[in-house]
Amino acid sequence: MTIPVPPVPVFDPAELTLTSVRGLRAAGVRAGIKASGNPDVGLLVADAPVPAAAVFTRNHFAAAPVLRSRAHLEASGGLVRAVVVNSGNANACTGAQGEADARAMCAQVAQLVGCPEHQVLVCSTGVIGVKLPMDRVRAGITAAHAALSREVEAGRSFLLAIMTTDAFPKEACARAGAAVVAGVAKGAGMIQPNMATMLGFLATDAAVPAAALRAALPALAAKSFNAVHVDTHTSTNDTLLVLSTGAAGEVSGWLDRSTEVARRLAWLIARDGEGATKVTTIEVTGAASEAAAKAIAERVAASALVRTALYGNDPNWGRFTSAVGNAPEVKNAAALRCVLQGVEVFRAGEPTDFDRAAVSRAMAREDVSLALELRDGQGAAVVMTSDLGYRYVQVNAEYTT
Amino acid sequence: MTIPVPPVPVFDPAELTLTSVRGLRAAGVRAGIKASGNPDVGLLVADAPVPAAAVFTRNHFAAAPVLRSRAHLEASGGLVRAVVVNSGNANACTGAQGEADARAMCAQVAQLVGCPEHQVLVCSTGVIGVKLPMDRVRAGITAAHAALSREVEAGRSFLLAIMTTDAFPKEACARAGAAVVAGVAKGAGMIQPNMATMLGFLATDAAVPAAALRAALPALAAKSFNAVHVDTHTSTNDTLLVLSTGAAGEVSGWLDRSTEVARRLAWLIARDGEGATKVTTIEVTGAASEAAAKAIAERVAASALVRTALYGNDPNWGRFTSAVGNAPEVKNAAALRCVLQGVEVFRAGEPTDFDRAAVSRAMAREDVSLALELRDGQGAAVVMTSDLGYRYVQVNAEYTT
Repeated sequence: MTIPVPPVPVFDPAELTLTSVRGLRAAGVRAGIKASGNPDVGLLVADAPVPAAAVFTRNHFAAAPVLRSRAHLEASGGLVRAVVVNSGNANACTGAQGEADARAMCAQVAQLVGCPEHQVLVCSTGVIGVKLPMDRVRAGITAAHAALSREVEAGRSFLLAIMTTDAFPKEACARAGAAVVAGVAKGAGMIQPNMATMLGFLATDAAVPAAALRAALPALAAKSFNAVHVDTHTSTNDTLLVLSTGAAGEVSGWLDRSTEVARRLAWLIARDGEGATKVTTIEVTGAASEAAAKAIAERVAASALVRTALYGNDPNWGRFTSAVGNAPEVKNAAALRCVLQGVEVFRAGEPTDFDRAAVSRAMAREDVSLALELRDGQGAAVVMTSDLGYRYVQVNAEYTT
Repeated sequence: MTIPVPPVPVFDPAELTLTSVRGLRAAGVRAGIKASGNPDVGLLVADAPVPAAAVFTRNHFAAAPVLRSRAHLEASGGLVRAVVVNSGNANACTGAQGEADARAMCAQVAQLVGCPEHQVLVCSTGVIGVKLPMDRVRAGITAAHAALSREVEAGRSFLLAIMTTDAFPKEACARAGAAVVAGVAKGAGMIQPNMATMLGFLATDAAVPAAALRAALPALAAKSFNAVHVDTHTSTNDTLLVLSTGAAGEVSGWLDRSTEVARRLAWLIARDGEGATKVTTIEVTGAASEAAAKAIAERVAASALVRTALYGNDPNWGRFTSAVGNAPEVKNAAALRCVLQGVEVFRAGEPTDFDRAAVSRAMAREDVSLALELRDGQGAAVVMTSDLGYRYVQVNAEYTT
C-alpha cells in the first residue's frame, strides 16, 4: 500500500540553535546504538553549573534515566552541568541493570567534564525492554565529549542524536533582547511506534534562578507540550528540561519567548503525528473552569471519529458536538457554539446552514482551528491534535517491535 | 484503495428470534427513509402492556425520541405496549420540530394499537441534524402495523429495520427453562460514521416485574453493552430496552440467560467495529476496586496504539504496559503481569522471553484475550474492543456527512 508521506518542515531559517545560547557546548555522534547508523549519543555541557528545572513522565513505569535525572536534580538543588542523551534504546523496563547503566552514563560524563555526578542528567529514548549496549554508549560518550563545540553544526548534531522515528528535526529559537532562547525536541503527536518518548530541551542565556525556572515550568508546559494531545499514552521516558546559562544577564521577556519556542516545538510534534497531514488547534472557551475546558478539549482531541473527520476534510459537526456532549464537565450543552476554520457550523442545538464545500476546502490546510464556545463560565484551554489517516495505521500496525 | 472486508457472522442457526417470545408481534417495512431502500420502520407490539426497563444515552445532546421514551416510561410506571423504531434518521439536533415528530410517532402507534401514548416508546437512528420525513414515517408506521406477525420472518424484518451502517444483523437468543430470551441490536464497536447509535432490545416471556427488570438492568448493561469500548463517544440516541411478556410464567435463570444474550450482542457490536478484524477482551484483575479495574481496562481499550498493535498481530507488550502505567488508578505497577492469548509476556517490570512469532500467530484469531493482573486489591472488569485498521480510517474519513 503506497500512502503519501506528508511534507517535512526544515530548520528555522534564522541561524540560531541550541549552541547560540552563550555558555553552552554540544555534540552529537554515531555510536552504533541505532541500526540506521544515524547519530545516537548527544552531549550538552554548560561552562559551569547552571540553574535548571525539569518535568518528567508520570507513567508508573518511568525509565531508569528518568529516575536518575529526577534524583540528581533534587540532590544538586537544581544545578546542572551536563546532559547526556542516547537514542535507539530507552533503557526502560530493564530492571536493576538499567538503573546501573543510567548511573554509569552520568558517572562517565561527570568524570570527563569534571563535576559531581548529581550535576549530570541523562535521557534515553528508543526501544524498551532491551538492555543498553554499554560498550557502544561509553565509546559514544567519549567521542561526544571530544566533539563538544559552540558551532551551529554542533547544536544541530545534538538535535539529530536525540531523534528516533521523527520524520523531521524539531527546533525553534527566538531572541529576548540580548538573550537567546533555543529549543529542540523529539517526538510525534500521536506517539512513536514503540511508545513515543517526548524529549524537549530549552536553553537561554538570560539569567534566571533555578527557583524561577521551576515556578515558570508548569505553565510553560501546560501551554505547549502538555497541550499536544498524545493519545492516551505518555511514555516511560518523557522529559522536558529548561536551563539558564545566565551569560546574557537579566532579560525581560525570556518567559514569553520561551513559551513561544516551546509552543512551536509542540506544534511540530503534533505535525509529526505519524502520518498527520495537519495540526488542529481545539480551543474551548466559556467552560466552568480551566480544568473543565482542558478536559473537554482533550475529549474532542482524543476521539478517533473527530480525527478521521479532520483527515477527511469533513466538516462533520455531529462528531465535534457529540464529543462535547459526552463530557461530564459540560453544564449547559444547549449553549454550545461550534466554529470551524472561522465558520459557525453549529449553535443553539442545531447545525447552521453553512457552505460544506467551502469549509471542507478550508480544512485541507496545514493549520485547522476548531473553536468550541460554551457559556458555563470563564474557563478556557487549547489542545493541539494530529489527524488520523491511513499512515497512522500503517506506521503503528506494520511496525514490528 | 481496496481493503478487504471482514467476514460477516450470520443469524444464529437456532430458529429463535424476537417473535419467539410469546406475546410479541413484530414487523419491519420499507418506508423510504433510507436511500438504500432497505427496511427502515420497525414495530414491536405486546399483546398487553408489559413490564419494561431501559437505559438511555447520557450525552448532553440526547435526541428527541430518547427524551420522549424516558418520559413515557416514567409516566407509565414501566409498562410498555409498543416500541416504534425508524432508521435512516436519528431525529437528533432537530429542535422543537424533532420533539413534535417523536411525539407524533408515539401518538400514531397508540391510536393504531389502542393504548395510552405513554405506553409507546420510540427510537430513531441514522443521520443527525435533519428533520424526519414525517409523511414517509407515518406511512411506514401504518404499513408496519398492518404487517405485524408472530413469524420468525417478522422478528427478523424488525431487526433489519433498525440497522444503519451495520455490516451484519445482530441477534442472540437462548432458552431459560420454558421461557425464551431473545435480543437484537444495532451498532458498531467504534461507532457508526455519523455518530454511532447503539440500540438494543431484549425480550423474554419469563414473568419479571418492572421493578426487577429495573434492578437487574444496570449490572446486565455493565457486563455487556457498557463493556464494549465505543471510542470516547456515546451517541445522542443510545437505548437499551428490556421487556417481559410473562407468557411463560416465572422462570429461574432468565437473568443469567439475558446477560449471556446481551453479552453476545455486545460482542457482535465490537466485531462490527467498522473494519474490525477481531474482538479483544481485556480483563483487568487485582485492581484496587471494580471502578479502578474498569478505568484501567478502558484506558487500554481506548489506546489507538494498542488497537493498531492488535490489528497488526503485534505482541507489543510495551504498548499494553504503558497504557496501564498511565492509569492513575494503578497503585503498584511493579506487580503487573500481562498475559496475551494465554502467554505471559510481561512480569516484574520486564518482558518475558516469550515466543513472539507464536503469540503473533495466536493474535490473528477472531477472539483475542488480554489479561492484565495487578495486586492492588480484588477489583475486576472486562472490556471488549475492536482493533484499528485501514478500514476504520476508510469508513470514517471517506464517509461524507
